[in-house]
Amino acid sequence: MPNEMNYIDYLRLNKILDAQFPESDNQNKPAHDEMLFIIIHQTYELWFKQLLYEVESVNQIMQKPSLNDNSPELQTVVHRLSRCTTILKVLVHQIDIMETMTPMDFLDFRNMLRPASGFQSWQFKKLEALFGLKYNHRYGQEYYISQLKQEQIDIIKKAESGQSLLELVNRWLERMPFFKEADNWKNFTFLNNQEKENQDEKQHVFWNEYRRRYSESLASEEKTNYDLFDEVFTKNSSDNERSLSSAACRAALFIMLYRGYPVLQLPFQLLTQLLEIDEQLSTWRYRHINMVHRTIGKRIGTGGSSGRDYLKAALDKHYIFKEIAELTSFLIERNRLPGLSKEMERRLGFAG
Amino acid sequence: MPNEMNYIDYLRLNKILDAQFPESDNQNKPAHDEMLFIIIHQTYELWFKQLLYEVESVNQIMQKPSLNDNSPELQTVVHRLSRCTTILKVLVHQIDIMETMTPMDFLDFRNMLRPASGFQSWQFKKLEALFGLKYNHRYGQEYYISQLKQEQIDIIKKAESGQSLLELVNRWLERMPFFKEADNWKNFTFLNNQEKENQDEKQHVFWNEYRRRYSESLASEEKTNYDLFDEVFTKNSSDNERSLSSAACRAALFIMLYRGYPVLQLPFQLLTQLLEIDEQLSTWRYRHINMVHRTIGKRIGTGGSSGRDYLKAALDKHYIFKEIAELTSFLIERNRLPGLSKEMERRLGFAG
Amino acid sequence: MPNEMNYIDYLRLNKILDAQFPESDNQNKPAHDEMLFIIIHQTYELWFKQLLYEVESVNQIMQKPSLNDNSPELQTVVHRLSRCTTILKVLVHQIDIMETMTPMDFLDFRNMLRPASGFQSWQFKKLEALFGLKYNHRYGQEYYISQLKQEQIDIIKKAESGQSLLELVNRWLERMPFFKEADNWKNFTFLNNQEKENQDEKQHVFWNEYRRRYSESLASEEKTNYDLFDEVFTKNSSDNERSLSSAACRAALFIMLYRGYPVLQLPFQLLTQLLEIDEQLSTWRYRHINMVHRTIGKRIGTGGSSGRDYLKAALDKHYIFKEIAELTSFLIERNRLPGLSKEMERRLGFAG
Amino acid sequence: MPNEMNYIDYLRLNKILDAQFPESDNQNKPAHDEMLFIIIHQTYELWFKQLLYEVESVNQIMQKPSLNDNSPELQTVVHRLSRCTTILKVLVHQIDIMETMTPMDFLDFRNMLRPASGFQSWQFKKLEALFGLKYNHRYGQEYYISQLKQEQIDIIKKAESGQSLLELVNRWLERMPFFKEADNWKNFTFLNNQEKENQDEKQHVFWNEYRRRYSESLASEEKTNYDLFDEVFTKNSSDNERSLSSAACRAALFIMLYRGYPVLQLPFQLLTQLLEIDEQLSTWRYRHINMVHRTIGKRIGTGGSSGRDYLKAALDKHYIFKEIAELTSFLIERNRLPGLSKEMERRLGFAG
Repeated sequence: MPNEMNYIDYLRLNKILDAQFPESDNQNKPAHDEMLFIIIHQTYELWFKQLLYEVESVNQIMQKPSLNDNSPELQTVVHRLSRCTTILKVLVHQIDIMETMTPMDFLDFRNMLRPASGFQSWQFKKLEALFGLKYNHRYGQEYYISQLKQEQIDIIKKAESGQSLLELVNRWLERMPFFKEADNWKNFTFLNNQEKENQDEKQHVFWNEYRRRYSESLASEEKTNYDLFDEVFTKNSSDNERSLSSAACRAALFIMLYRGYPVLQLPFQLLTQLLEIDEQLSTWRYRHINMVHRTIGKRIGTGGSSGRDYLKAALDKHYIFKEIAELTSFLIERNRLPGLSKEMERRLGFAG
Repeated sequence: MPNEMNYIDYLRLNKILDAQFPESDNQNKPAHDEMLFIIIHQTYELWFKQLLYEVESVNQIMQKPSLNDNSPELQTVVHRLSRCTTILKVLVHQIDIMETMTPMDFLDFRNMLRPASGFQSWQFKKLEALFGLKYNHRYGQEYYISQLKQEQIDIIKKAESGQSLLELVNRWLERMPFFKEADNWKNFTFLNNQEKENQDEKQHVFWNEYRRRYSESLASEEKTNYDLFDEVFTKNSSDNERSLSSAACRAALFIMLYRGYPVLQLPFQLLTQLLEIDEQLSTWRYRHINMVHRTIGKRIGTGGSSGRDYLKAALDKHYIFKEIAELTSFLIERNRLPGLSKEMERRLGFAG
Repeated sequence: MPNEMNYIDYLRLNKILDAQFPESDNQNKPAHDEMLFIIIHQTYELWFKQLLYEVESVNQIMQKPSLNDNSPELQTVVHRLSRCTTILKVLVHQIDIMETMTPMDFLDFRNMLRPASGFQSWQFKKLEALFGLKYNHRYGQEYYISQLKQEQIDIIKKAESGQSLLELVNRWLERMPFFKEADNWKNFTFLNNQEKENQDEKQHVFWNEYRRRYSESLASEEKTNYDLFDEVFTKNSSDNERSLSSAACRAALFIMLYRGYPVLQLPFQLLTQLLEIDEQLSTWRYRHINMVHRTIGKRIGTGGSSGRDYLKAALDKHYIFKEIAELTSFLIERNRLPGLSKEMERRLGFAG
Repeated sequence: MPNEMNYIDYLRLNKILDAQFPESDNQNKPAHDEMLFIIIHQTYELWFKQLLYEVESVNQIMQKPSLNDNSPELQTVVHRLSRCTTILKVLVHQIDIMETMTPMDFLDFRNMLRPASGFQSWQFKKLEALFGLKYNHRYGQEYYISQLKQEQIDIIKKAESGQSLLELVNRWLERMPFFKEADNWKNFTFLNNQEKENQDEKQHVFWNEYRRRYSESLASEEKTNYDLFDEVFTKNSSDNERSLSSAACRAALFIMLYRGYPVLQLPFQLLTQLLEIDEQLSTWRYRHINMVHRTIGKRIGTGGSSGRDYLKAALDKHYIFKEIAELTSFLIERNRLPGLSKEMERRLGFAG
């Protein structure tokens, strides 16, 4: 590096801009659009690197047991996840560029690429793993391994074995202190005192009350939701398919319900960002499917997959934060919300 | 109208801006976000009106038997369909605005709206019908009728019974004159003369040749596509599920293959616009599903539907121009393309 | 209204969809694109109504003297301003639709509209006024009045005479309590004790220190910024052109510098939203100029204005929150930031 | 390259993903956001490479003297320019990502970058030159040279000295054959025969007629436009500031007026794409200015420029295709358009 900072050297443009070698040139059958194909994939991979960088930093912060509400780091987490959403929106938009390549233009070099394939993007798979997609939740498990070199499989396996954002969020939710603190609840008001006696002693006073009010809020066709309620919020089912514990679900729902209180504002933003990320990821997958369908129809992908079918199955299976999204089924109207005691309100506020 | 033109009178703003009556105000339980809910739906309906206006004008042009390549109207058709795509992109984007309404904010007035529901948007259903969605292809046929008043059912039925854009495109493709004109093919070159003798006499010389070349282009895993080829391009199957005749499919594929020639440029743009519209419609449906999922989870929609499940099934079934999209399965590389004779090249060019 | 809620009645679609009367039809010279022209303006006006609704609700909240950090309403303010940004982004995007109308298509009915003009959109002018644009800051003051009816001028004047968001933000910033509370500063650490003696007694200990550090951070070419510093943060200049008092500027800068602390997180988001709104408004103005330029070139607008020149001058003058944007000139690097005392840190945290 | 094609090797990901070296790491003062700063600039440069690749291919095609209306290559030109627009839209959108970096986050490493600066992006300057921006039209000529190494200045100078897209478009327009062919005009109809005698013999019969009709179409306040008309379309002014000759302007206006005829459809799309590119470039510049303003306020850019002021002046000066945009000033209503003779109509159609 020269002692005087320079844009070109700083950005390693000599490397970056000397990394495009169309195979169609190599084979002396120039296909104009292959350059676009290369460059768009390179930009995708650069952005994947950035996304990994952000999510790794977020997971690192979330791993600190000391992460609490007073920590400025919670804001950092929200900010960086929100940046991930912004990046993902651009990645979705970039598909517009890919779509300027017509099927005929792609055919000019498509066969030269076999068996290379976008399924070999280990960065994207690592990203899914860091967010929380586990191997056994993946669609087409053997297929995805067969496409990768051992070196990359190892990277992804390592990411899968570490604590994912979803698991860290689960723990952070479980750490929420408010229910455990007796003072917050000693003046919690029930609709009538009789209720107090009828309630399930094993359940927290708040959730006893909330469950009753939720039940009242259901339309007659929705009564089955009531059973789901217990499934999600009270039983600690040994169902391995669930990622969030019932304690975590209670904390998350509480945050959604009382998000107006200062302490809960950032936690609410955090939960919202997770849903935003899932939505952008899924929109990306969806537009990707449509693009593949338009470009190769029912033909076999360069990597040998049945193309669209694979992507479609993955789309439905790879919602990472869907258990958080589904909590909205259990909200009730604001005017039915249990009021909180003065002590609790103080607890959720600023030192002032 | 005053004799001096004025922005407010011209746009009937007194009507437009005096059409928002939140039910939550009516019931004296003001819910701030209901205004947004009303206004966004009103803008959607205004844009649906504009889309209907454009598609009706397009269908009217496409109905003229005189519509030919020299007609300036083909350009008008492409331009207006492209405008539809542009509008649909904004409608997709508008979902961002809807998503600023959190589930809790929606709950504040959601129950007051029952049993009104977006499924009652007859304009959108008419739009689908004008594009080419037939009643028997609709998901949940009885359900959609049960939601509407007879007056609106009649409007949609009428649209369904008229000639849809898809049907008109089918006829327009069938009218393509080039294969019928003997002069264009008398000097058509085969790879070797022997071929000439082996070919299926019932088939056009071009398609005999193309079919052979397509077969050669298939990867071994794709050999089943060869059977599909005949299914799509030669048999006039009585399959009621197919909207495009084999003659129309041949014309469409020819346009895709030789789109560089002047006469085929606008027809290619027209086919491309149909795919764009389908893509935007499907992206709209997809984001709509996600939004509903985030907003009401697994609860019942205000119209009594199971919400997300209905939308999801419709998403998969309501691709209108999918038979055009699937033609990409039958393209071959440019360097394998049969060359055209001088006569044919002249036929596809300008008077010059 | 029927006793059963219905989508069409609820949304007053009979009114909304029966409000498009092309003047070209009226004059029996049908111009296809006039429908688009009408409908796009109607959707703009619907969105302006929504923006006004949000900003009015925000201003109402900001007017409460009791609005403090513990109030859930600050979150509501941020959320609604963020919704305004989301809406404005769609309004910017909508220009894409307008641009599908070519200059020739516009000419078909353009003259029929004279002297109506978009300058007669009183809702947009009211919106600018609610945000904080004052009459004497407007470009082309007489011109804008000459275009409007007295009734609408009165509405805008009323909005101009009320407390704008900018003024309310100024007051809210001035109310920030932290500098006035002696306890927060008794243990504030200086770089060295000598400093303590040299400082300007009239200035707050924090700002004395900050000003010195800011001065050190400036590159030699930037030394003039130092004079600006005093101008902005200490003198209460009688300069009528400035909207923010020096006390408000100090509060805003403090929020930007220490945004990590819980109490300052929402205030930081609020300031950021104001800049987002300004950016979207200005992007909207800019794209609007380009569109007008493309559509009518150097011709006179239907309202008689010189079109582009007017819009361009307004673009440069109508930045509403620019004094907040310009505070970034006075930030210093995080590692140069004065540390806060334990007391102050506690003050900025949660009750916990 | 291994004999089996692989995604990672094909895309040179080892190079691409090993090119991020934050200077803040280098100086042991890690600043999280510098990675974003590096990666976003790298993606910009990759896209600039793609844009250069497309524009160079377009310019190469446009250089062929044989490029005529029957050539499939005109379609290629339009398609590639349209791709440039699509890419530029994503580049505009990417600014959203940059804006997730707050001013404080930028300050953490900003000073480490001096004197590197985005002004050193020679690819962007080359792109401007290929489109048609000449050195003497550039704002801040000496400044831009002072920032670059001789090697890069040479590249840009070479691009400036070659034939730009604007110059090639000028020549292509001048080649338009229709006015020179006497047969097209022998049956051209005037409003009345008397006119025929009064006309300026030196002018083409069509333009004599058009000029008269244009004059009639002007509102009284617009009469000065009439003088402009002669300036633009008849005098071959020695004004070095103009890039398009009067012959080219006549051809371009004719294309705009009669774009419905088959031969003129692609030429019209070509002109439209040039305006789209200018619009996106200018939107990019505008949002860039706003971003710089928000990020560094009135401070000096890392390259030593006055930042915003430089960018603002460039914005106003660097419209490349503005002479084409301004032709819209000279359109007239369709119902005033001179009709074309049967011979001419045939000339503008397909061989059919």
